[in-house]
Amino acid sequence: MRSVAVIGIGKTAFGVLPGDLRSLAVEAIAGALSDAGMGAAAVEAFYLGNFAGPSFVGQNHLAPYIGMAAGFGAIPSTRIEDACASSGSAFFHAWQSVAAGIYDVVVAAGVEKMTSQGTPRVTEILAAAGDMASEGRAGATFPALFAMIARRHMHEFGTTRRQLASVAVKNHANGAKNPLAHMRKVITLEQALAGKPVAEPLTVYDCSLISDGAAAVVIVPAEHAKRYTSRFARVLAVAQTSDYVALDEKPSITAFPAVRSAGERAYAMAGLGPQDIEFAEVHDCFTIAEIVASEDLGFVPKGEGGPFAEAGCSAIAGRLPINTSGGLKSKGHPVGATGVGQICDVMMQLRGEAGERQVARRRVGLAQNLGGSGATCVVTILEAA
Amino acid sequence: MRSVAVIGIGKTAFGVLPGDLRSLAVEAIAGALSDAGMGAAAVEAFYLGNFAGPSFVGQNHLAPYIGMAAGFGAIPSTRIEDACASSGSAFFHAWQSVAAGIYDVVVAAGVEKMTSQGTPRVTEILAAAGDMASEGRAGATFPALFAMIARRHMHEFGTTRRQLASVAVKNHANGAKNPLAHMRKVITLEQALAGKPVAEPLTVYDCSLISDGAAAVVIVPAEHAKRYTSRFARVLAVAQTSDYVALDEKPSITAFPAVRSAGERAYAMAGLGPQDIEFAEVHDCFTIAEIVASEDLGFVPKGEGGPFAEAGCSAIAGRLPINTSGGLKSKGHPVGATGVGQICDVMMQLRGEAGERQVARRRVGLAQNLGGSGATCVVTILEAA
Repeated sequence: MRSVAVIGIGKTAFGVLPGDLRSLAVEAIAGALSDAGMGAAAVEAFYLGNFAGPSFVGQNHLAPYIGMAAGFGAIPSTRIEDACASSGSAFFHAWQSVAAGIYDVVVAAGVEKMTSQGTPRVTEILAAAGDMASEGRAGATFPALFAMIARRHMHEFGTTRRQLASVAVKNHANGAKNPLAHMRKVITLEQALAGKPVAEPLTVYDCSLISDGAAAVVIVPAEHAKRYTSRFARVLAVAQTSDYVALDEKPSITAFPAVRSAGERAYAMAGLGPQDIEFAEVHDCFTIAEIVASEDLGFVPKGEGGPFAEAGCSAIAGRLPINTSGGLKSKGHPVGATGVGQICDVMMQLRGEAGERQVARRRVGLAQNLGGSGATCVVTILEAA
Repeated sequence: MRSVAVIGIGKTAFGVLPGDLRSLAVEAIAGALSDAGMGAAAVEAFYLGNFAGPSFVGQNHLAPYIGMAAGFGAIPSTRIEDACASSGSAFFHAWQSVAAGIYDVVVAAGVEKMTSQGTPRVTEILAAAGDMASEGRAGATFPALFAMIARRHMHEFGTTRRQLASVAVKNHANGAKNPLAHMRKVITLEQALAGKPVAEPLTVYDCSLISDGAAAVVIVPAEHAKRYTSRFARVLAVAQTSDYVALDEKPSITAFPAVRSAGERAYAMAGLGPQDIEFAEVHDCFTIAEIVASEDLGFVPKGEGGPFAEAGCSAIAGRLPINTSGGLKSKGHPVGATGVGQICDVMMQLRGEAGERQVARRRVGLAQNLGGSGATCVVTILEAA
């Protein structure tokens, strides 16, 4: 397998946006191509991550629909759906195709347009990433599923509401400094603790946002990267793994085997361990998810994710900065765009372009994208050129 | 790129089936694994084609949902959506991954469960494979779009209702001999001509069926195939291409550039020409689509698809048998299953297992899977071992 490099990134703002699904995706793709200094005609394959365009905006067959508007022409244009990990998976397949020598220039993108539906309908559409025959029939939406995970984590490890709230406070503080974030609002611990309940023990401040947005990256073999830019990063590893969709089929709900195995595979591929990761974007669809991810990725021992966050270790100035973009919590979570969006955010840090949010150690960053309640996971490790 | 072989096939019957989406897919996958003489634990990646499970049955995140039930465990499980070419595209990506040396054992499958919805809702869900902002807003469902294609083809080339009806009569005759076909009913030319109008000039006999069903194949490097079975076939070529989703963006609506380019790429890859294809499964979502495909694939010059069908050249005993399975018209069209289903049908012919439908020359067969009104096309060429 060849070494692969990300040579261009493009992102729309995340938020309540006027553009339609296609125009958002095309904007992000044009940005990534421009950043890479190339035109659409050079692209040999297009991988699009989208979770639920047909349900949110009534349009299916999205890969050629977007690809033709982006100028890609007759090349293979393929939509990948793996719930909230749709564009993480799109990136995985794009990377595979370049690493294996099939193509030399590939675009991976993700998009979701969610705010054209009201919150009840959005919640219903998102619930279809869980097991509708069991969880859905029982009325369990994602806030309810992650509330169960949080309760069980509290029971097993003594995790507290204050620790969950610390994640929210940190991610809001980071997002407030990110010009592309959906909710640029600093909150206090007291506010987070007094949030309106959504599904106990989760409040509105524990839940990620319903957002529109798109993100795209251009990848090439690492040996070609310098032809295009000096601002590239090497893809040290990408791993995609799977697990049961329904929570009740898993032996434990406080650890996700898919995250553990994706992390282990990625570390092995990169020849690194969790101690080598200098900063990370993890999938904080709920505050508890960031805590569980920090454990399953080996950043801290099991059960210590809460104290880690509360102690400020995951803050920008902390030992291992997590979600310096603001995370799904504050930056926003346009589902299909989230995976590639995280990779763009890691790239900005690696290139030293994160402004007020810039981390000090910026050589190796990790992105972790989760689908559903742990049924799909994609872990990517990038290294600055 | 390594030569790749299909070593196992599995199909459910197509029709109005009692099983749910997941159980249908698992049945087809189990059949393919059993046919290949291997267990699920040997599989290294899973590519699932599904067009609209979330809309038809309310379940999304289908790749791990099905993959875990099929016994695949932590391997990458990915859903591919490219409209009616979803599983053709799943096969393309599965093939790429084995050809490029990423994996040694991969399953590509497709599934759709359509009959839990009534025809008006099914038509609406299918319409989302077209351009909803233009075609959909104008009320143009797929029968309407293909009716326009038929009318224009009649205008340009003198194609007749009788020629369209000949395709229906042939495919019904073939499907009547296929134990897995949805509608095993012989019809006469008079019946086809007198069919109830759907969208003039198309009648019910010109339209494919709304079906449930699933299909799966197991692929490995050709050099490994003999370890598993003597009944394998070599994949000589697979090509996936894209074009505009909306008909009004295409320079002509009587030829699909995506079909032409996929055919050209596949012929070049296989080192063959249209004259070397001994039989084919083509995407007859409507009778006119079979006629256009026979032209765009180079089986006949442009405009001669109608006379070719009417003269019996595409019958089982004809010069180039097309849709010996009964095609989408009679075998059924569970959208996401159709592409891999075609490959299973070609395999049965190559292996001499097509019973009453067996063609005489059975060394090289082609499958052509179309998404929407020509926005995605996947062409596969297989050769008997």
